[in-house]
Amino acid sequence: MSNAFQDYYSKHFSFCYGCGADNPDGLQLKSFWEGERTVARFTPDPRFTGGVPDHVYGGLVASLLDCHGNAAAFAYAHRELGQDMAAAGGAGLRFVTASLKVDFVAPTPMSVELEVHGDLRSLEGRKAWIDLSLSADGKTCATGEMLAILLRT
Amino acid sequence: MSNAFQDYYSKHFSFCYGCGADNPDGLQLKSFWEGERTVARFTPDPRFTGGVPDHVYGGLVASLLDCHGNAAAFAYAHRELGQDMAAAGGAGLRFVTASLKVDFVAPTPMSVELEVHGDLRSLEGRKAWIDLSLSADGKTCATGEMLAILLRT
Repeated sequence: MSNAFQDYYSKHFSFCYGCGADNPDGLQLKSFWEGERTVARFTPDPRFTGGVPDHVYGGLVASLLDCHGNAAAFAYAHRELGQDMAAAGGAGLRFVTASLKVDFVAPTPMSVELEVHGDLRSLEGRKAWIDLSLSADGKTCATGEMLAILLRT
Repeated sequence: MSNAFQDYYSKHFSFCYGCGADNPDGLQLKSFWEGERTVARFTPDPRFTGGVPDHVYGGLVASLLDCHGNAAAFAYAHRELGQDMAAAGGAGLRFVTASLKVDFVAPTPMSVELEVHGDLRSLEGRKAWIDLSLSADGKTCATGEMLAILLRT
């Protein structure tokens, strides 16, 4: 399997609980290209249940969208700039989240692999808007959008 | 110390990773009245670092706002309805999040007690809008809003 976007983050920025490759206690979310789209897949551990039994807690849904959205911004920005994220050797771009909105359109079931998509809406200067969605068994459970800001170039 | 709002959730709804009193692996966020406002305080464990060193990862900020906002909706709804959440004996109201928006206005530092506020903007029928904020050492790090829906009455 090829490396995930997060595997190309600089070492300095790779300890995120949600997606840092170097945080052994974290979720280690991994994001990839799938054709022209970006995708991450994640099966929540049973401890991440929500207040409603057999459903994922909202904070995890937000976390997955946030971390994947940031990774998608990273990947799209490299592509738009004509840069190879692998060639940058971990010295490349890094985004941070300025704003995140999540609409919980249906309960997210536990014990199922979740699929997260992040699609570029616009990239202007240091601002990337990403459209987000999370689905389980092909059913959309959450949609969202985020504004990610390029931290350094 | 008096019981937290979450301690009055029905047993059926008390396993949330973020704030369930009966989830031993969870964050166990606790929300209280403080005068006319609602507040929760939480010091993140070091594993919850973000991609940027010494800052809290965005997913945890979203989780704290989401869980506290839900608890605030629960408390305000009891107050508006003239019901005592303690007297309901865990058979009371329960909200779920329909929508959550978070603006990350400043980095959230690690190793500091975070303070989360949730203020009722409106409660109409089953819909509660809550204005949210998270601060560290008196400095606002995130603001937000949520729409919570009453699951059962």
